[in-house]
Amino acid sequence: MSVRPLDVLNRSLKSPVIVRLKGGREFRGTLDGYDIHMNLVLLNAEEIQGGEVVKKIGSIVIRGDTVVFISPSTGGD
Amino acid sequence: MSVRPLDVLNRSLKSPVIVRLKGGREFRGTLDGYDIHMNLVLLNAEEIQGGEVVKKIGSIVIRGDTVVFISPSTGGD
Amino acid sequence: MSVRPLDVLNRSLKSPVIVRLKGGREFRGTLDGYDIHMNLVLLNAEEIQGGEVVKKIGSIVIRGDTVVFISPSTGGD
Amino acid sequence: MSVRPLDVLNRSLKSPVIVRLKGGREFRGTLDGYDIHMNLVLLNAEEIQGGEVVKKIGSIVIRGDTVVFISPSTGGD
Amino acid sequence: MSVRPLDVLNRSLKSPVIVRLKGGREFRGTLDGYDIHMNLVLLNAEEIQGGEVVKKIGSIVIRGDTVVFISPSTGGD
Amino acid sequence: MSVRPLDVLNRSLKSPVIVRLKGGREFRGTLDGYDIHMNLVLLNAEEIQGGEVVKKIGSIVIRGDTVVFISPSTGGD
Amino acid sequence: MSVRPLDVLNRSLKSPVIVRLKGGREFRGTLDGYDIHMNLVLLNAEEIQGGEVVKKIGSIVIRGDTVVFISPSTGGD
Repeated sequence: MSVRPLDVLNRSLKSPVIVRLKGGREFRGTLDGYDIHMNLVLLNAEEIQGGEVVKKIGSIVIRGDTVVFISPSTGGD
Repeated sequence: MSVRPLDVLNRSLKSPVIVRLKGGREFRGTLDGYDIHMNLVLLNAEEIQGGEVVKKIGSIVIRGDTVVFISPSTGGD
Repeated sequence: MSVRPLDVLNRSLKSPVIVRLKGGREFRGTLDGYDIHMNLVLLNAEEIQGGEVVKKIGSIVIRGDTVVFISPSTGGD
Repeated sequence: MSVRPLDVLNRSLKSPVIVRLKGGREFRGTLDGYDIHMNLVLLNAEEIQGGEVVKKIGSIVIRGDTVVFISPSTGGD
Repeated sequence: MSVRPLDVLNRSLKSPVIVRLKGGREFRGTLDGYDIHMNLVLLNAEEIQGGEVVKKIGSIVIRGDTVVFISPSTGGD
Repeated sequence: MSVRPLDVLNRSLKSPVIVRLKGGREFRGTLDGYDIHMNLVLLNAEEIQGGEVVKKIGSIVIRGDTVVFISPSTGGD
Repeated sequence: MSVRPLDVLNRSLKSPVIVRLKGGREFRGTLDGYDIHMNLVLLNAEEIQGGEVVKKIGSIVIRGDTVVFISPSTGGD
């Protein structure tokens, strides 16, 4: 009955997610891939600070080691 | 007679938990899954600071690497 | 003749222990379980700061990664 | 359907990338190689701070352990 | 001809040692056990700050991960 | 077609390199060896701060764990 | 032709070395042993700060995890 964390990532493929990193930075984008280390691939990634987009980055590979959490972003906040 | 830490997580599935992260942040939510790295899946997650809900996040995958403790939350505090 | 660290944890099961975490926080509680990573299960856990109980937490799973030391607490301090 | 993070690196070989490191430093350069630890080889690497080139470094081997993200850089920013 | 670090710990069993931890804390006590991770068991442990005993702790299990060094303490300082 | 990071180290043997460590320190010297952990051996090593040589160290074994990057140093800067 | 980092340690056995730790502390002493984790055994160890001996420690086991570099100390500095 337990949902495995990587299953949640799998279900979120091609959908928008929010990723928070150690140190507080956040990225938004479309989850395009991941691996067992929680390394992530985001498309149309944007870096967020204080709720504001500070940088559009395009596609990005994030090392899982720096990730605090990943949240499927569900339209309205 | 020893209780294994992952057994406690298993018994807490579908129940409310509090998760404290390195750096002091806390999340509350319903534990929907975990794995052996203590990566966690929370539903209806809320981020807490100083006892106040600062953000409603929905579902969330937390990397075990950043977890300090997980506490089954038992109704009254 | 050497005592293995996990043996000490085993002998402390169902007994009160003090756990200090990186960053200086301490928890007191009854050791209810552990695993080889020194992940710990405490019952009736209390968070301590400067010798004072700042929070009663109930049961708690602590990640071994954040533990500095565990001390069987022997009645009088 | 999931894109593996290392595949993205593979597709970026011989192309310009931006690499952000823990602590905030960024390097730009041509991705000339990588391994499974995300150790990277950049050619014509430049160190960037606040959007400015602060140092031209030539070729460089970056340890994956220090990497936050790698972004294929697509001409215009 | 090389002395293995764990051999030194073995020769120090039942003898007084000083253990310095990351962050600068020191513990004195009788080394009662260890394992290959350098997890340590001390008896009659005392926490030291600036050369002063700030806390008597009794027996203690220290996680090797937090250890900087272990020094057999040879009577006079 | 991908260059492996350790191949770059191999090609740099007996040549001058610059090594930056976590925390910002840099060492210059002749790369005399390495292993798969990116532990490095430098000969005629000099510690650099702000572009100035602050210490001549001779030969040195650097733990890979502390390395941010290694750059073959190509005569002119 | 490459010198392996552990070979350098082996050649330095019974000879004076300088060990710098994360956080900047240095120890001088005679290298009496090591293992593959770069855990080190020093004899007649002295802790150094700003070039001054601040503490004579005798024999010491240093965890490799905290080591930045090890330098065979060659008589004159």
